[in-house]
Amino acid sequence: MLKNNNKIAILTSGGDAPGMNAAIRSLVLAALHYKFDVIGFNYGFNGLINSDFCTLDEASVRDIIHRGGTILKSARSPQFMTTAGQKQAADNLNHLGVSALVVIGGDGSFNGMLALKGFYQGQLIGIPGTIDNDIDGTDHTIGFATAVNTAIEAIDKIRDTADAFDRVFVVEVMGRHSGFLALNVGIACAAEQVLTFESFQNPGLELQNIANHIKQCKDERGQSSYLIVAAENLWPEGVTKLCSDLQAYANITCTPCVLGYIQRGGDPVAKDRILATKLGVAAIEAVRANKDMIMIGETSGQICEVPIQLAVKHKKQVNAALLNAQNSILDIAELAQLNKI
Amino acid sequence: MLKNNNKIAILTSGGDAPGMNAAIRSLVLAALHYKFDVIGFNYGFNGLINSDFCTLDEASVRDIIHRGGTILKSARSPQFMTTAGQKQAADNLNHLGVSALVVIGGDGSFNGMLALKGFYQGQLIGIPGTIDNDIDGTDHTIGFATAVNTAIEAIDKIRDTADAFDRVFVVEVMGRHSGFLALNVGIACAAEQVLTFESFQNPGLELQNIANHIKQCKDERGQSSYLIVAAENLWPEGVTKLCSDLQAYANITCTPCVLGYIQRGGDPVAKDRILATKLGVAAIEAVRANKDMIMIGETSGQICEVPIQLAVKHKKQVNAALLNAQNSILDIAELAQLNKI
Amino acid sequence: MLKNNNKIAILTSGGDAPGMNAAIRSLVLAALHYKFDVIGFNYGFNGLINSDFCTLDEASVRDIIHRGGTILKSARSPQFMTTAGQKQAADNLNHLGVSALVVIGGDGSFNGMLALKGFYQGQLIGIPGTIDNDIDGTDHTIGFATAVNTAIEAIDKIRDTADAFDRVFVVEVMGRHSGFLALNVGIACAAEQVLTFESFQNPGLELQNIANHIKQCKDERGQSSYLIVAAENLWPEGVTKLCSDLQAYANITCTPCVLGYIQRGGDPVAKDRILATKLGVAAIEAVRANKDMIMIGETSGQICEVPIQLAVKHKKQVNAALLNAQNSILDIAELAQLNKI
Amino acid sequence: MLKNNNKIAILTSGGDAPGMNAAIRSLVLAALHYKFDVIGFNYGFNGLINSDFCTLDEASVRDIIHRGGTILKSARSPQFMTTAGQKQAADNLNHLGVSALVVIGGDGSFNGMLALKGFYQGQLIGIPGTIDNDIDGTDHTIGFATAVNTAIEAIDKIRDTADAFDRVFVVEVMGRHSGFLALNVGIACAAEQVLTFESFQNPGLELQNIANHIKQCKDERGQSSYLIVAAENLWPEGVTKLCSDLQAYANITCTPCVLGYIQRGGDPVAKDRILATKLGVAAIEAVRANKDMIMIGETSGQICEVPIQLAVKHKKQVNAALLNAQNSILDIAELAQLNKI
Repeated sequence: MLKNNNKIAILTSGGDAPGMNAAIRSLVLAALHYKFDVIGFNYGFNGLINSDFCTLDEASVRDIIHRGGTILKSARSPQFMTTAGQKQAADNLNHLGVSALVVIGGDGSFNGMLALKGFYQGQLIGIPGTIDNDIDGTDHTIGFATAVNTAIEAIDKIRDTADAFDRVFVVEVMGRHSGFLALNVGIACAAEQVLTFESFQNPGLELQNIANHIKQCKDERGQSSYLIVAAENLWPEGVTKLCSDLQAYANITCTPCVLGYIQRGGDPVAKDRILATKLGVAAIEAVRANKDMIMIGETSGQICEVPIQLAVKHKKQVNAALLNAQNSILDIAELAQLNKI
Repeated sequence: MLKNNNKIAILTSGGDAPGMNAAIRSLVLAALHYKFDVIGFNYGFNGLINSDFCTLDEASVRDIIHRGGTILKSARSPQFMTTAGQKQAADNLNHLGVSALVVIGGDGSFNGMLALKGFYQGQLIGIPGTIDNDIDGTDHTIGFATAVNTAIEAIDKIRDTADAFDRVFVVEVMGRHSGFLALNVGIACAAEQVLTFESFQNPGLELQNIANHIKQCKDERGQSSYLIVAAENLWPEGVTKLCSDLQAYANITCTPCVLGYIQRGGDPVAKDRILATKLGVAAIEAVRANKDMIMIGETSGQICEVPIQLAVKHKKQVNAALLNAQNSILDIAELAQLNKI
Repeated sequence: MLKNNNKIAILTSGGDAPGMNAAIRSLVLAALHYKFDVIGFNYGFNGLINSDFCTLDEASVRDIIHRGGTILKSARSPQFMTTAGQKQAADNLNHLGVSALVVIGGDGSFNGMLALKGFYQGQLIGIPGTIDNDIDGTDHTIGFATAVNTAIEAIDKIRDTADAFDRVFVVEVMGRHSGFLALNVGIACAAEQVLTFESFQNPGLELQNIANHIKQCKDERGQSSYLIVAAENLWPEGVTKLCSDLQAYANITCTPCVLGYIQRGGDPVAKDRILATKLGVAAIEAVRANKDMIMIGETSGQICEVPIQLAVKHKKQVNAALLNAQNSILDIAELAQLNKI
Repeated sequence: MLKNNNKIAILTSGGDAPGMNAAIRSLVLAALHYKFDVIGFNYGFNGLINSDFCTLDEASVRDIIHRGGTILKSARSPQFMTTAGQKQAADNLNHLGVSALVVIGGDGSFNGMLALKGFYQGQLIGIPGTIDNDIDGTDHTIGFATAVNTAIEAIDKIRDTADAFDRVFVVEVMGRHSGFLALNVGIACAAEQVLTFESFQNPGLELQNIANHIKQCKDERGQSSYLIVAAENLWPEGVTKLCSDLQAYANITCTPCVLGYIQRGGDPVAKDRILATKLGVAAIEAVRANKDMIMIGETSGQICEVPIQLAVKHKKQVNAALLNAQNSILDIAELAQLNKI
């Protein structure tokens, strides 16, 4: 076990996610409890390279558990992509006497840890913070629950207009290349269709299916609204193009909406605050137990440790059957065989 | 004064706006109090043409004061643009014995009233319902206050990410061709720039001004976020193009965000519920007083009546000086000479 | 397996919980998919006794997934506490040809199912709907996640005032006789103390501990706010009395706040909408599989079936160690050994 | 006109109100524009007495426009009630070279200004910041619009439960001794009764009227919820007593809810942010124009100046007729003659 008064450093990297501040707070309070010194690097890996950091104490993390964004700032760091940058970062960590670095971020950040490990002998611990939930080895990432709720609150408003006009809306949600946001948002908003990677066939087939389903719904239900939730990066050229494709293919008029950056910010919901608090404390315990190159996650309500190189595999997927079930009111009962969202 | 047991009809038309349901409720309760029969036409002027209507009683309007959208639905009605359509609508109103029609909507709806008047002898009363606040003769339209708040809540979230990355964001808000939404949202979000019609010069000059101001802010404040709120329909080809123009002109990287349809929906804020309640009751009083072809509005806290043909003039503008003041932190003090937002 | 066109009935009972409407929707859509007829009894078990019911079809459940409360209403039913009432209820179910009844509610409702079983031969299936999360055999009940978020949003506002005045606030949250709400809310709001059943000793000892901790915090942190989250039904005579006790015992001035009924209502968060959707479909599958006297729950993300008599045992408890850890910033690191909230 | 580089001081006093931070920001930016030095006293008048202050620059007020509470803290100050305290405060102001002090607060704070004037020769300018809206000479005070919206969002949730159970709820809102909050909240929530000072007769008569109205509504509408919004400090011993009185008088079961401190906090709505921004800039202009002992307010959309001694007269009242109209669905049409909420 490390002697205390050793120094722990924290940084946030990649896209910001609601709950990152709650994780920073938890890390700091737990580290202070064990008499560690704590510093925070600003602007992600850029802060490592530029030795841009601040001391973190109890006052630094007061009243931040409920704030979106990250008090440590974030940034993309092209410089850290280079060997020179990684070496500079390691030198700075050593020079500052940092014995353990905790990185809060997504898979890009974890790949950064893998690169840094070539030059740095201290401990590296990851905490999954991204709204995309695309990290293996943890049921949920910090920020995911808030992003889902932000999206459904936005779509509840859009549904008001869709209902008033019996209109078809196509709403694009974030998620990078995974369908977790789209599927959860789609179910929670009673979307008539969820379009995401796990079930996607090809634009031609999908167009046909969507058009048929819209017409079937109109026939069965009379005039009414129809909502499609689509993952970003899915439809070639995006949802605006999907709408014009539907117009061209089947003379169906749709309104596209890209929810965009509102999904990254906002006060975290309770789930993200609590998850962040637990992961932060567990990360400090992992530091004390001399763990290295692991991510702290949570599966089935239990804290777990995952080797960083496994966390970035992108094998975690939404349940395709659940997705198919959601996509047909007629088949919603198939949801019953499906347990894991 | 009309004898009671005459029949009043209501419709909502044009873009939906939060508070339309509160207006419907108020109209119905006040009309029932005076023993009028009340019917509601569905889908705006289409409902007139198709005689698609429902009876409205106290139960119909229970528990709707706080709901976005409109229980009477809305629609664009190309058919009503024709003389045949207008004549059909008038015939149906007469056939149903409707002695007064109340139209809740924006300037398109009021122009519809002007057209209908050529064929219909009953009373026509307008209530301003649009998030754009672009109706003359009333300080605020129903839905405007909610749309401003929806936009600022969204932008507060975007600011989290802007701050985390010290990034420049350009957020497009609705408003059609008026700057009320953009200006109010910009001031309330402490936007560093508001771009709207009243102060717009030409793209070249604006690009230069924006680029200079961004650089000045970065110089004076160090790294930090920078927020531009832009009115829709302002920049040629929209805010995405504005971002690429800024990149090309001054190598400034910006992120575009189009808030879109979330601004039309959602539960109305108190202001819109109360305004709608007051206008609804006043409209029924106007019916009783045999008024015709007027819009019920509110200026300086007082109910007022405005001839419909004046309400659609589009002369009401945001205060350009207030706008200029907002656009410079250095000039914010000019706000002092400016009283009217 | 039941032949279809059999009739399924639904009722909601006990305190309303956000997500009950999502469960009703899911039950109805899944049942219709399998060609069941569906009726809903109004006002809980009262509806059974009075044969007060309505037919439920696809239109009945449109646009309700995001609404708080319950479209089937709820009620306390003293009459159903009697044998005569239970027999009447069973007779009505038989008379109406109901072959399966799904009850959405808490432990009182499930005890009602146990009583009804004495007289009714059809299937009885339970779905856990209560904000208190005090049902055994399921990780979460429908409504719990929303209630936690409603409480933290309220407390975030209270913290504004607490911080402005460096004041001590004692906030009472619901939960009946379990500490799930209090603990989750306390962690998510960074409460300095959580008072709940699992760790409660006696008023005298607790007073001493609280007073010492408040003074310690003031000494270490200087002036600052201090937040206590307390479970309802915990302190003899409630939190107002706790405040006067603290004044008398240690001259500490506290402000009491009872959050009250806002915690029961409001639009459900995504978690409750999705949980309700899954449990509803699974309940219909259970009907098809001829299951009887079970509750459908979810543990570790998996649907499960629990005998009703086990669901009402009240053995599920919050983790007392997690609770103790939360209660001391000095001991927050103990959270690390604790996995289950 | 003052020479610049003179020093302006700011403090917030009395109950905190959402928008106070927006006012501080506006004051600081406008003052800096005119080259004033700016300091902020902490904890209201206590800060004056203890010379507890901080320098305020552009960075101090970044990112606070949307935050509840007050970064300058507030406090009750018994010491400032004494002549010695007032003299000490004046001495400190003079010693620090403060030529103008801006006080953001309610009538207690303005009375403090009147007292301070006896010992201080510098300028004193007031800005109305209180959720109660009980300041004469301004249509709205900073914080009022947010408090109304916070209350209606809470009551919308309570209405979910009221509707589910067809229950009578009595909700107490803040407002000290004025009815602005109660009336606006009542209208916006479609309350069946608003109880406030302006229309209150005596408990006996009120009990009779309420009981009759509840029974009439139940008779006419069948089972349904019934909502009473009551001003704090109105009913002898509060709304819990009102509920037991109704039980005793007419066997009507009611549930009391005290909204409490959630009404003081929370992110300000757009209205309060914009009002605070305008008043802050106007206050600095007033300083430059050598004004003294005035409050900056807004009436009918226009900035105005009001002598402090007039601002504290408590003559502004809600329209009693509007109140009576709201209290009867049968009389809602009387709203039409009433223009000013």
